Amino acid sequence: METWDAITSRRNVRQFADRPLGDDDVTRILEAGRRAPSSRNWQPWDLIAVTGREELRELSRVWRGGGHVAESALTVVVVLPVLDDPARRERAGFDTGQAAMQMMIAAADRGIGSGHSAVGDQDLARQLLGFPEDRFASIMIDFGYPADRPLRPIRRPDRRPFSEVVHFGRW
Amino acid sequence: METWDAITSRRNVRQFADRPLGDDDVTRILEAGRRAPSSRNWQPWDLIAVTGREELRELSRVWRGGGHVAESALTVVVVLPVLDDPARRERAGFDTGQAAMQMMIAAADRGIGSGHSAVGDQDLARQLLGFPEDRFASIMIDFGYPADRPLRPIRRPDRRPFSEVVHFGRW
Repeated sequence: METWDAITSRRNVRQFADRPLGDDDVTRILEAGRRAPSSRNWQPWDLIAVTGREELRELSRVWRGGGHVAESALTVVVVLPVLDDPARRERAGFDTGQAAMQMMIAAADRGIGSGHSAVGDQDLARQLLGFPEDRFASIMIDFGYPADRPLRPIRRPDRRPFSEVVHFGRW
Repeated sequence: METWDAITSRRNVRQFADRPLGDDDVTRILEAGRRAPSSRNWQPWDLIAVTGREELRELSRVWRGGGHVAESALTVVVVLPVLDDPARRERAGFDTGQAAMQMMIAAADRGIGSGHSAVGDQDLARQLLGFPEDRFASIMIDFGYPADRPLRPIRRPDRRPFSEVVHFGRW
C-alpha cells in the first residue's frame, strides 16, 4: 500500500473480527517496532507478543478499559526498564510513542487496525508475562482486523483544523 | 512509495543538501503530524514550521547539539502546554513521539531525511518563535534531503536483534 494511504487509513479499532493474523503480519509489526528510532539508539524496550485467545483474555484484566485486548488478534506489550530519573522516563515515553506509531502504520499497511491500552495492574501483568522486577509494562498495543468496515483513507479526520495546529515561522 | 519501503528507508540525517522542500512536501509532513493519534484525542500539540535560512540558523542556537537544524530545509517545533502533573507530561511525551514518527515516515516516503533535536534554551526559543508563557518547545524535528546518499531501504538496521527484543507469549 502507498505510505500515505496507510497513514490516513490507520484508525483506532475497538471491535475486532475473529480472524487471526498471519505469522508474517505479526513478524512485520514487531519488526516495525524493533526498528523504531530512540534517543542515542538506546532501544529501551522489550516487546512481548501475545496471540493466544486465553492469554489475551487474561491480559485484558490488567486494565479496566482493556476489554478490546481480549478480542484482539495480537497484543504487543511494550516493557521498559523502571527509571528513577524523570527526564529519562520522559525520553522513554517519547521513544515508546515512536515505536507504537511505527507498528500501527505497518499494521494499517496490511488492513490491520490497532488501539492503545494502558496497564493498571503491574503485578498481574508481571505474573502473566514473566518480566523481571526491574521492568514494567508501559503500554499495550492491540491489533486485529476490524469487525465492521475495513480500513480505508479518512478524508476528514476528527482533529483540530490544520490552520489552528500549524503556525508558519512563528506562533 | 510502498509503506514498508518508507519505514525501512527512514534514517537520521545530520547533513542536509542545500535544496528546499516543495510546499506540498511541507504540508504533507505537517498534516501527518496533525493526524497523529493522542490520548483521548486531546491533541496537545501546536506545530511551528520554520523554513527560512536565517530563522533556522537562529533556531539552531536553542540547543548545543542543534547545528543540523541550521542546515535543514524545514524544522518543525512541537510546542506543548506546560503540565504540572507528571502522568499527563508522560502522556504528552508519548503522544509527541507518535506525531514525530508519523511526520518522519511521511517525509521518508518522499525521500526526505529527518532528525531530532532537543530544546535547551526555552527563553530563546520563546523569543524566536513567540509561543505563550504557558507553553514550551518540547522537541524539534528537522527535515531535508540528505547531502550524501539518498534514502533507501536499510536491510540490517543498527538495532538489538529481533530474537532479543521480541518475546512470544511470555518474557
